[in-house]
Amino acid sequence: MNAMTTLTTQTIVPGEWQDEVASRVERIARALAKTEADCLLIADNVNIFYTTARVVAGFVLIHRDGRVWRFVRRPVGLTGENVHYVHKPELIAQCVDFTPRCLALLGDRLTHAEWQRLSCVFGDGVEVIDASRLMSGVRAVKSEREVELLKQDAAMHIRSYAAVPSLYRPGMTDVELQIELERELRRNGCLGLFRIHGASMELFMASVLTGDNADAASPYDFAMGGAGSHLSLPVGANGTVITPGSTVMVDACGNFNGYMTDMTRCYYLAPLSEEAVKAHRVSIDIHRRLAVKGRPGVQAAALYNEALAMATEAGLAACFMGHRQQAGFVGHGVGIEVNEAPVLAPRSRDVLEEGHVIALEPKFVVPGVGAVGVENTYVVRATGLENLTPAPEQLLPLNA
Amino acid sequence: MNAMTTLTTQTIVPGEWQDEVASRVERIARALAKTEADCLLIADNVNIFYTTARVVAGFVLIHRDGRVWRFVRRPVGLTGENVHYVHKPELIAQCVDFTPRCLALLGDRLTHAEWQRLSCVFGDGVEVIDASRLMSGVRAVKSEREVELLKQDAAMHIRSYAAVPSLYRPGMTDVELQIELERELRRNGCLGLFRIHGASMELFMASVLTGDNADAASPYDFAMGGAGSHLSLPVGANGTVITPGSTVMVDACGNFNGYMTDMTRCYYLAPLSEEAVKAHRVSIDIHRRLAVKGRPGVQAAALYNEALAMATEAGLAACFMGHRQQAGFVGHGVGIEVNEAPVLAPRSRDVLEEGHVIALEPKFVVPGVGAVGVENTYVVRATGLENLTPAPEQLLPLNA
Repeated sequence: MNAMTTLTTQTIVPGEWQDEVASRVERIARALAKTEADCLLIADNVNIFYTTARVVAGFVLIHRDGRVWRFVRRPVGLTGENVHYVHKPELIAQCVDFTPRCLALLGDRLTHAEWQRLSCVFGDGVEVIDASRLMSGVRAVKSEREVELLKQDAAMHIRSYAAVPSLYRPGMTDVELQIELERELRRNGCLGLFRIHGASMELFMASVLTGDNADAASPYDFAMGGAGSHLSLPVGANGTVITPGSTVMVDACGNFNGYMTDMTRCYYLAPLSEEAVKAHRVSIDIHRRLAVKGRPGVQAAALYNEALAMATEAGLAACFMGHRQQAGFVGHGVGIEVNEAPVLAPRSRDVLEEGHVIALEPKFVVPGVGAVGVENTYVVRATGLENLTPAPEQLLPLNA
Repeated sequence: MNAMTTLTTQTIVPGEWQDEVASRVERIARALAKTEADCLLIADNVNIFYTTARVVAGFVLIHRDGRVWRFVRRPVGLTGENVHYVHKPELIAQCVDFTPRCLALLGDRLTHAEWQRLSCVFGDGVEVIDASRLMSGVRAVKSEREVELLKQDAAMHIRSYAAVPSLYRPGMTDVELQIELERELRRNGCLGLFRIHGASMELFMASVLTGDNADAASPYDFAMGGAGSHLSLPVGANGTVITPGSTVMVDACGNFNGYMTDMTRCYYLAPLSEEAVKAHRVSIDIHRRLAVKGRPGVQAAALYNEALAMATEAGLAACFMGHRQQAGFVGHGVGIEVNEAPVLAPRSRDVLEEGHVIALEPKFVVPGVGAVGVENTYVVRATGLENLTPAPEQLLPLNA
């Protein structure tokens, strides 16, 4: 019944992406060649996008020798070398000229049901290994092309933040300000959805926290909490009216082109407590220190410990990364997803590499006032961290 | 370092939810008692919310004898019978007075990595089975309390739709109209996020399709496609200016209280083609027919076939549920997630039960014009389908 005559065909890997995608596939193949696996079968949107430069419903198969096949269920109309339309994964084996002894899958991406099914596409008796860490390690190191996308993203992200004071109206709640900021982001070209790793991680495009809601504990493993507006989504803004003496922390994920920078800036309604001003200053100091210390070869855990030591030295350990409930990290990788490798946490085994992109977010909760602190996204260079999100960092009045 | 002195404790299952949650747990236990499994261990937000009436990071354990335990990682401060704080699932076994011979997990919810870890929490040698279908079957049958929530949701959902013509400005693109509608939904209390089953399913809160973009094929398994604004999110609005002679299909998921109704309404800029008017009429006719035929005991596939037969009789089979690419279903369950059981598809084995809640969405793509059709959410009653989303169904002019 499908009117294929109206079909417009497209190359599965867009022309301007072919070199970049080939380079990514080659890096994955080189990493695979150090394992038992003959090939890696990818089935999730994030890693299909990484290895194809578009999302399709289907599968990408990468051999350790560098060859790549793409199997598509939907959409119709895609062409290219080694592209096969299959309506079920069991047809994959017929399309390739080898049978692996050992197959790699991504155990942090596939549901167990999907893993079971994909384990058998090359028949029984094939050994299956989990290449999750391999894949996240490859993706953590960004190419210059990716850094360029992050910079483009950051420009629109920064522009959206600059509008925050103009979006504020006296008497507004945190939710109302968030709605206006989400609209502003969208009008600046934000795609409106963004990707988080982990099925149980749920987050708003632009999280706004004010007053004591910043101290409300949340189930989610984000830097800050917030009670949220409903027990089905207990995170972030909860309808608190923004009042004098409170800070307003805005933590928005830009996603304007498939890559995301992550930023936080803080605003306030005067009068502002000395403690909040001081804690915000310590956050900025931590940024400056870590920007120098964050070089290839440095332990991610060492950076966390440095940040915690500075917080402790300032007498702020009890409200560092939360107060009633504290987050156990101070930064995280970011790219196609808002939470990639590496993670800057006390027990992290990650080591910084050139090209890692890290959102650094030393934050403090000041009881009775709200949250303070800055988040920037950096790329790890040989000489230290290059800030991808340069924008004013001071506490800004909402009603100037 | 955590200042637990400031802690406010809350009962994990809110008081007004205890009877409802107890009834859900009892239904799950009864279903479990028909399997090999001694208990079911739940770890995903959706099913934790279903069995606890709030989202926590942690686990719910339900024994076939009806007992239930809740294990919490975050947030701090929750209390209740059989509530234990654990920082890792391996501590669960110490908190209960039995060791299962057979453990049920949800293979469509857990990643393979999570499944592997949870399989071992009661030691090696425990048989593990997948209770995904059991759980989705229980959740598909809504209680009257759930239907009441869906009706409350629908009221705000309908109110948001009523605003669509007032949101339109001449020269607007589909994306611009979508941004204003998403804001309107949010201002009416929509929580701003909603849940879709399946890691590879990504969708906007309010999808707007106009003109030929309605005919653009998408990788996602939704009723309609759309090219989207970027290859990283190839679905929905793509920046097409809304022009005279085009329809504008608005498919928004309301999520105002953790439960969702699903609705679609269509708008247009005159002049409107006869073919679009006719196809829209056929969609409404399909609704009327299926509302009578949709009773407990009816095969979901039979309802799909009835809809397809009506489309075929009207000469519209080639544009039913898409044109360049056609969706293979005409309706789906809805509740905490926008895609629950049952599914109204040709090979579905689902049988309608009293209390099933179904979004029915017979739609047509009219090339050169856009998409038409109506989507309502119904609850299956003994006498047929009760419409939870009663609102004007006719094609409405945007510039009246």
